[in-house]
Amino acid sequence: MWDTLWLNVHLATGDDTLITSADGYGCIRHGAVGIQNGRICWVGAEANLPGAPENLAFTREDGRGGWLTPGLIDAHTHVVFAGDRSREFAERLNGVSYEEIARKGGGILSTVAATRAASEQELLEVSLKRVRMMIQEGTTSLEVKSGYGLTLADELKQLRVARAIGETLPIHVHRTFLGAHAVPPEYRGRADDYLSFLVNEVLPALHAENLIDSVDAFCENIAFSPAQTETLFKAAQKLGLPVRIHAEQLSLGGGAVLATRYNGLSADHLEYADEEAVMSMACQKTVAMLLPGAFYFIREKQLPPVELLRKHKVDIGLATDCNPGTSPVLGLTSIMNMGCTLFRLTPEESFRAVTSVGARALGSAHEVGILRRGMRADMALWDITGPHELSYWVGGIRPLRRIYGGVCAPAP
Amino acid sequence: MWDTLWLNVHLATGDDTLITSADGYGCIRHGAVGIQNGRICWVGAEANLPGAPENLAFTREDGRGGWLTPGLIDAHTHVVFAGDRSREFAERLNGVSYEEIARKGGGILSTVAATRAASEQELLEVSLKRVRMMIQEGTTSLEVKSGYGLTLADELKQLRVARAIGETLPIHVHRTFLGAHAVPPEYRGRADDYLSFLVNEVLPALHAENLIDSVDAFCENIAFSPAQTETLFKAAQKLGLPVRIHAEQLSLGGGAVLATRYNGLSADHLEYADEEAVMSMACQKTVAMLLPGAFYFIREKQLPPVELLRKHKVDIGLATDCNPGTSPVLGLTSIMNMGCTLFRLTPEESFRAVTSVGARALGSAHEVGILRRGMRADMALWDITGPHELSYWVGGIRPLRRIYGGVCAPAP
Repeated sequence: MWDTLWLNVHLATGDDTLITSADGYGCIRHGAVGIQNGRICWVGAEANLPGAPENLAFTREDGRGGWLTPGLIDAHTHVVFAGDRSREFAERLNGVSYEEIARKGGGILSTVAATRAASEQELLEVSLKRVRMMIQEGTTSLEVKSGYGLTLADELKQLRVARAIGETLPIHVHRTFLGAHAVPPEYRGRADDYLSFLVNEVLPALHAENLIDSVDAFCENIAFSPAQTETLFKAAQKLGLPVRIHAEQLSLGGGAVLATRYNGLSADHLEYADEEAVMSMACQKTVAMLLPGAFYFIREKQLPPVELLRKHKVDIGLATDCNPGTSPVLGLTSIMNMGCTLFRLTPEESFRAVTSVGARALGSAHEVGILRRGMRADMALWDITGPHELSYWVGGIRPLRRIYGGVCAPAP
Repeated sequence: MWDTLWLNVHLATGDDTLITSADGYGCIRHGAVGIQNGRICWVGAEANLPGAPENLAFTREDGRGGWLTPGLIDAHTHVVFAGDRSREFAERLNGVSYEEIARKGGGILSTVAATRAASEQELLEVSLKRVRMMIQEGTTSLEVKSGYGLTLADELKQLRVARAIGETLPIHVHRTFLGAHAVPPEYRGRADDYLSFLVNEVLPALHAENLIDSVDAFCENIAFSPAQTETLFKAAQKLGLPVRIHAEQLSLGGGAVLATRYNGLSADHLEYADEEAVMSMACQKTVAMLLPGAFYFIREKQLPPVELLRKHKVDIGLATDCNPGTSPVLGLTSIMNMGCTLFRLTPEESFRAVTSVGARALGSAHEVGILRRGMRADMALWDITGPHELSYWVGGIRPLRRIYGGVCAPAP
């Protein structure tokens, strides 16, 4: 007997063996999903079930004709932070200049200061509040970056909080070390020294505590150069850690190509990426993680090269980039709509971007992201006419129910 | 004894007698609100309460340090419709042309056909589903337009459904007759005849059933001319009904000025409005109802004249414009963020736009929209650091609790 059997549902499996040119979602109408030990043990049409439902599973769940999808995967977030930059947002709209805000200690370094000042418990509490909202929006897997600590103790604190989130709430957390997010004040003008500190002290210590699933860097004129980033990537490679990168957001700097040379899981932002970068990502199967929330919030005009990504068959991911300064976004269906409206992705592309492609960007494609036998039973049930509707609502919509490891989690 | 006393809350009253240049929200920190018979009977600082809380009210509610605001007012929606245009959205992104979609019966006339085909009960059910989501987003007053029926029977059906929504759910519904939304197929090429039909048959019949709170028209090149609109407004005026207008969305057509000549409650959209239109609205105190959801969804480039509206002190409102073709939006905080991000409103302006100004646009400023003694106790409680945060989150945030007529409504 299975633990649970979902009936009276349509399925958007995202399974590439079911995806066709006419159906970019891998749909099974009038489907059923069996669950055992937190994993999917059967997926198919309800009519093809190998027996009467009451003989197959202890619990039968009625999907009421809704659509069951893989749980959503948010593969780029900075959700663990302290402080409040909504006031800075208000000040800017009231005409206070960036310079004035920076002079008063605003911007990313204000988030660094607040995150350093918070205790681990305080940081956990404010972060849990946000992740609870993400959960209500249907997210079941979440990447969380460090990068607001920028000292050994504070990067450690941020990643411990990220771990604690996954231990506290029904959500998988992938922890990314982003010490190379900004040069902290105490290293101003000494970026190379800071990089050495990260490589020689911080990275090994955090890795020894098993806190790092991947290593990221903000490779940009205003942050770290490709050469500095490469130093970090070499160190990550020695430790056997996969890498990813923030690249080509504000200018074409070569970060995406660099990441592919280290088998990067994803290159993120990419507004200014050129065809060389795209071809390099195609070769290495590096995911192009597009972040329309930041594009919208900072009113960027340069669109990412979606046509080139399609031409070279690079997988396109979407994520919230949840952060206080440039992308205060919690919900992935909101981002799916922005992917379509702002970047002209198709709803099929947006759907895969936050499910199977998101899973690839986390190195978890064998575990989550599609509805298939053997995968973790992380799913969401939606009251929609079809999976295209997930991309349709501006501001997003929420699932009726969210299933995590087979369990219909109550609202946290 | 009062019925209820809210304690341990900060208040963003929106009360113009409390608003200053330093505080555009009329804040009272550590405030309290007393409620009796569904109305606010006391507002002030908790320290100034005229007695011990347990002696003042039968029920004391703990706001847990959150912010209490007026319930949100969505003063421009087309939320009563049948059919599904999310598929059309998907088709367009997959490269199907507007012409092809129109040839297959898509566009606004597909919504008209579906709305006509739906029974009153069916139309109510699909509409209730959407309004329930609006309620969860904090909306307590809602304008609902007809305009997808375009026959006497079907306009009647739409407005009866609008009435039934207010009788079914804890939300105030203002009903607007928008027969002049589009020329229906059976009148193709005979817009004047259709207008005569509206004026002579539909408007009097709906008014006789007391279904109309205001009269609207879509005054645009692709819809009705100012002369046609004026015929309708004259008829409305004779019946004592206030008017409002969809104007200057796609071109400068003179609709806003026309509406002011009939003391219009609001002129809506306004991307192409010029200074003459703005000055005319200023004179007549007509609200400028801006609709950033449609601006975003159809990727409009022409920004509404916010600086002119400020210069001439025209009240700026914001609404969802909830409709299936150009603005599938349910939540007003999402719209507040768009008002700031896309139109560069300040968070203070966005706040008033969906509270006190929204109330003015509905002719209900004496009843709702601010926290003041005598007003209806329609409020929302938010877990935020200040009212500016309502505009900060992309995709919006939801209230912790929503109070309607003094009652903490459970999720519907």
